[in-house]
Amino acid sequence: MTAHEVTLEQIEDADKVLVGVAQHTPIDHASLLTELLGVPTSMKLENLQRTGSFKIRGATYRLSRLTDEERARGVVAASAGNHAQGVAFAAQQMGMAATILMPLGAPVPKLLATKGYGATVITDGATVEECLALAAEHAKRTGAVMIHPFDHPDVIAGQGTIGLEILQDVPDVETVVVPVGGGGLISGVAVALKEVARRTGRHIRVVGVQAAATAAYPPSLAAGHPVTVERGGTIADGIAVVRPGEHTFPLVRDLVDEVVTVDEDHLARAVLTLLERTKLVVEPAGAAAVAALMEGLIAPSGPTVALISGGNIDPLLLQRIVAHGLVASGRYMTLRIPLPDRPGQLARVSEILAGVGANVIEVLHTRHDMGLTLNDVVLQVSVETRGPNHQDQVLDALRGASFDPEVASA
Amino acid sequence: MTAHEVTLEQIEDADKVLVGVAQHTPIDHASLLTELLGVPTSMKLENLQRTGSFKIRGATYRLSRLTDEERARGVVAASAGNHAQGVAFAAQQMGMAATILMPLGAPVPKLLATKGYGATVITDGATVEECLALAAEHAKRTGAVMIHPFDHPDVIAGQGTIGLEILQDVPDVETVVVPVGGGGLISGVAVALKEVARRTGRHIRVVGVQAAATAAYPPSLAAGHPVTVERGGTIADGIAVVRPGEHTFPLVRDLVDEVVTVDEDHLARAVLTLLERTKLVVEPAGAAAVAALMEGLIAPSGPTVALISGGNIDPLLLQRIVAHGLVASGRYMTLRIPLPDRPGQLARVSEILAGVGANVIEVLHTRHDMGLTLNDVVLQVSVETRGPNHQDQVLDALRGASFDPEVASA
Repeated sequence: MTAHEVTLEQIEDADKVLVGVAQHTPIDHASLLTELLGVPTSMKLENLQRTGSFKIRGATYRLSRLTDEERARGVVAASAGNHAQGVAFAAQQMGMAATILMPLGAPVPKLLATKGYGATVITDGATVEECLALAAEHAKRTGAVMIHPFDHPDVIAGQGTIGLEILQDVPDVETVVVPVGGGGLISGVAVALKEVARRTGRHIRVVGVQAAATAAYPPSLAAGHPVTVERGGTIADGIAVVRPGEHTFPLVRDLVDEVVTVDEDHLARAVLTLLERTKLVVEPAGAAAVAALMEGLIAPSGPTVALISGGNIDPLLLQRIVAHGLVASGRYMTLRIPLPDRPGQLARVSEILAGVGANVIEVLHTRHDMGLTLNDVVLQVSVETRGPNHQDQVLDALRGASFDPEVASA
Repeated sequence: MTAHEVTLEQIEDADKVLVGVAQHTPIDHASLLTELLGVPTSMKLENLQRTGSFKIRGATYRLSRLTDEERARGVVAASAGNHAQGVAFAAQQMGMAATILMPLGAPVPKLLATKGYGATVITDGATVEECLALAAEHAKRTGAVMIHPFDHPDVIAGQGTIGLEILQDVPDVETVVVPVGGGGLISGVAVALKEVARRTGRHIRVVGVQAAATAAYPPSLAAGHPVTVERGGTIADGIAVVRPGEHTFPLVRDLVDEVVTVDEDHLARAVLTLLERTKLVVEPAGAAAVAALMEGLIAPSGPTVALISGGNIDPLLLQRIVAHGLVASGRYMTLRIPLPDRPGQLARVSEILAGVGANVIEVLHTRHDMGLTLNDVVLQVSVETRGPNHQDQVLDALRGASFDPEVASA
């Protein structure tokens, strides 16, 4: 192993600094993954971290290392989400002024949370990249210290404290799977795990997971240097970073065993499974490691820990993911049923649905649908069902009574 | 303290039996409650327990104490939810046959989960009480052993293991708050905590929380014996029990310091706060202790643990609670705006909404609304907003442009 600019000693120092600010988050046994993979698997719950993500670790350690003169000038950061809250919270804890540039249209809960931690929030710019440029200008103009979301040795050392906690709580760990955006989190974790493993003569595998839509590491690792990729649309906004950092890239290249990618459906399925089965709220980026394990993209090997990096999901997005998941698994179906316009038709349909045990959730009864004769009405009805077979039963029952249902979503 | 039929020794025995079946669930620091109450507060996360609730503890210990002859006959239970899954899972682990009576219309996910654990599920009866009667018949007819959801010393001892884990993880605990239905959970926890406290010469306060809509303990404690109350509608179905048990009542009477009640809004608010701020999925019954603490119904005293008893919430109910919470906090608003029927009106409204930073989530554009003139159309538009003030801004902007928006939900 070559010498790196982040060492185990720095991470141990960060661990001391974080006491009383960041929490030692719990490890939760993952029954579902354990069964699926055939190796004892657990999850490190950084979604239960203060501010809802691991970001306060790096931010706090970075801020703690500023000189008194720098502290007096305050800090500035650009972020649409977790880094904003991490920096705002850390600055508040240390009594420093923080200015956060957030893009226009950033999710309301994240805006409110960042303001709630006492930061001055400026919403400007269409993308995080534009915000970064604006933040750099702000730093130049005011003298505030720019806090990069991942590409700084102190930030990396702060995130590395998670590696120490994993070793403490799962001493026999052999594989750790980590979501990857810019690479700050996995770099720090890998330094901690690999160095402890080296000193104790064992092997710990570190695997990174990116969202396929914006995955800069696979091509960068292939090229041997950071490569900029195009930003693709992904629900995993927290890890949609178009280029590895100058500090993080060498660490990932040298210390991470493998980086795999997951697609949008994998992420959505993981979020829903974590919500329904594991009772955890996890943002799509935070669920990347679990998604990769669920989809069988990582060969199981020894006791495994999946890092859940954050839980800050916009409730409106969560609603959409749950709805999508219910539809996809045959547990919710919307039907459009043309009805002859005479009394009693709605009652008849309701009876048929009740007869086959489909719970009616929503009904929309409209007239004058395009393409229908003047007197016809269309009934749009959403029902809760027990799965695809049950949906077929529902359709058969309606057809058997001479209705002609069309599945509007299933 | 009078002698009771459940002892600390039995709970310690149960603790050994549960190894490898139930998990020692994590404790999570509760920043929000700690700030609110001014005492260090944490949460015992039985929503992360296998099967999503504490019920497998009592079920497993109860089943482990059956004779070989009883085991061969199998078990039967009646439940709409967590007890069903607990018994099914415990029976599966021990290789016993289990039959579960679930009421008609029980939530689909709970039906599927119970079947998933290998139980024979019979859906019959309109209420859990009817299911209990049917289960008793089934037991009589087939010889299967009836497993009561709470009113049995072994069940109580099994739930009591949570008390031991709390003492292990929060050794300086002074107050423990527990959701209460039939009283099995709080009885066991109280035996463990009070007996350890007695032996070590300290005081630990145990407080119970019931849903006001169906709260049998306050009148029963006042009367000095179990009293049957009417079942009121509550989202906390898991603790809607109309009468304390014969075994649980004396334990609650003698060992529990206080039982308070929370109303439906408290429960919904707690579920949403746990979801959004704490990143935990908790069913309404499971959130009762947190609800009582959030609403200031329990005087703070020393390090406090709120027991989260379960996370099995129907996704459709979760969707409704989140939607309700967003509307209630001014973060979502649906408007009905009558539009003159000429081109460009939808575009104008869209521009105004964009101008004040309201994100449009859903649009419904309909003609022929009752009470409008023949050519008018009504635009129904749902927008994401940043709070009540922002909603006023949105309304003012529309009115300033001569539209007449009506708030359909806010």
